Amino acid sequence: MESVVNVVKGKQLYEGKAKIIYATDKPDLYIQYFKDDATAFNAQKKGTIGQKGICNNKISTCFFELLQTKGIDTHFVKMLSEREMLVKRLDIVQVEVTIRNIVAGGMAKLLGLEEGIELKEPVLEYHYKHDGLGDPLINEYHIKALDLATDEEMHYIRERSFEINNILKNFLVDRALILVDFKLEFGRDAKKKIVLGDEISPDTCRFWDRETRKKLDKDRFRRDLGGIEDAYQEVLMRITGKK
Amino acid sequence: MESVVNVVKGKQLYEGKAKIIYATDKPDLYIQYFKDDATAFNAQKKGTIGQKGICNNKISTCFFELLQTKGIDTHFVKMLSEREMLVKRLDIVQVEVTIRNIVAGGMAKLLGLEEGIELKEPVLEYHYKHDGLGDPLINEYHIKALDLATDEEMHYIRERSFEINNILKNFLVDRALILVDFKLEFGRDAKKKIVLGDEISPDTCRFWDRETRKKLDKDRFRRDLGGIEDAYQEVLMRITGKK
Repeated sequence: MESVVNVVKGKQLYEGKAKIIYATDKPDLYIQYFKDDATAFNAQKKGTIGQKGICNNKISTCFFELLQTKGIDTHFVKMLSEREMLVKRLDIVQVEVTIRNIVAGGMAKLLGLEEGIELKEPVLEYHYKHDGLGDPLINEYHIKALDLATDEEMHYIRERSFEINNILKNFLVDRALILVDFKLEFGRDAKKKIVLGDEISPDTCRFWDRETRKKLDKDRFRRDLGGIEDAYQEVLMRITGKK
Repeated sequence: MESVVNVVKGKQLYEGKAKIIYATDKPDLYIQYFKDDATAFNAQKKGTIGQKGICNNKISTCFFELLQTKGIDTHFVKMLSEREMLVKRLDIVQVEVTIRNIVAGGMAKLLGLEEGIELKEPVLEYHYKHDGLGDPLINEYHIKALDLATDEEMHYIRERSFEINNILKNFLVDRALILVDFKLEFGRDAKKKIVLGDEISPDTCRFWDRETRKKLDKDRFRRDLGGIEDAYQEVLMRITGKK
């Protein structure tokens, strides 16, 4: 467990689609600030989701704490405020890892499959983190050719991703949520060790209600299904037991 | 080596973009007939290339014979006529395997790379053989989810593909040709053994002149570079020593 750390917020380093990263007075610590801004389809669709930043900070905190108790190293240090999380500075691996338990979204479209098919074994995908190219699906040979990570790093990332899937799936099923799929990002910490970064929230996961299969994630925004804020609050409530 | 087989041509079973498949009086043998028809960009571009069928039949025959002498099992039995090849009946694995030694075509576009970059190690790609979906890039998890082949079959296919790359690359370099990339198809024979199928030709490979890097393959058709027929004849001449 991390010891208590007090930091002074520094200058803004980077503004992403859903978060802003700030420096601190400690070179190896950053603050990630969760915004209400939402984008979809490679930022072709834009909007805001009320209170999303607060929800996602709380939900991510809960998941990172859970994963750390199960031995998964993450960049999470502590929640600083409703919208701020103290994290380790990472050199991000430019590969997004997706794990899928049920066919939905990109996989349904790619392979011409019906959404909702249960996969016998989880499907792992790598996407090149490159907005200009539309985050294309790539494979391990492309990762090597682009020199995005070493074989050892990718092996570690793959193993951890499947482990994280098992931990989250089991945790969520007790809260009447199905983990359909989710996206992870990893990075190298100051000691060059690979740790989990980014966030784990309804922005980066698909959650369906176990009984009704109602979508409780960013698909409500992507597909104009309405009740977006309520869905995020519902996930927060089921996961943490409080609003 | 195959013993001499005499067959009687049967009915047409299937017409593809570049070949027609006929049955024979032997249930495990088919005839593949090489057409002059050419297509590109998932058949959005169509045309004919004079004598292409004859060239590709002769070039494929040469490559299949070469591979068989090196211990690679293929569907090739013998050349029957200028445009006809006797082949084993295969249950085709619906996965196209691409091996790349130099960045070109789809990989350049996918990753935003310059065409012509030499890869430190060959890049392997799998594409789902599905015209309606545009033959998308997929990975081994998708192959498993779609039940296209077993893990053992894919392991065998991957190993053979890299071996074939080495054999062809070495053969071609002596003929002043660079093997930029190529596509392979595999299938299961009557004994469920995986063997190489389809063809190996300027339709399915990129060949560049070793000195000038002039394109001597279907890219001349795709990109309207002219001299298409001459390029196919040139490859045939360099590979077989005769027209």
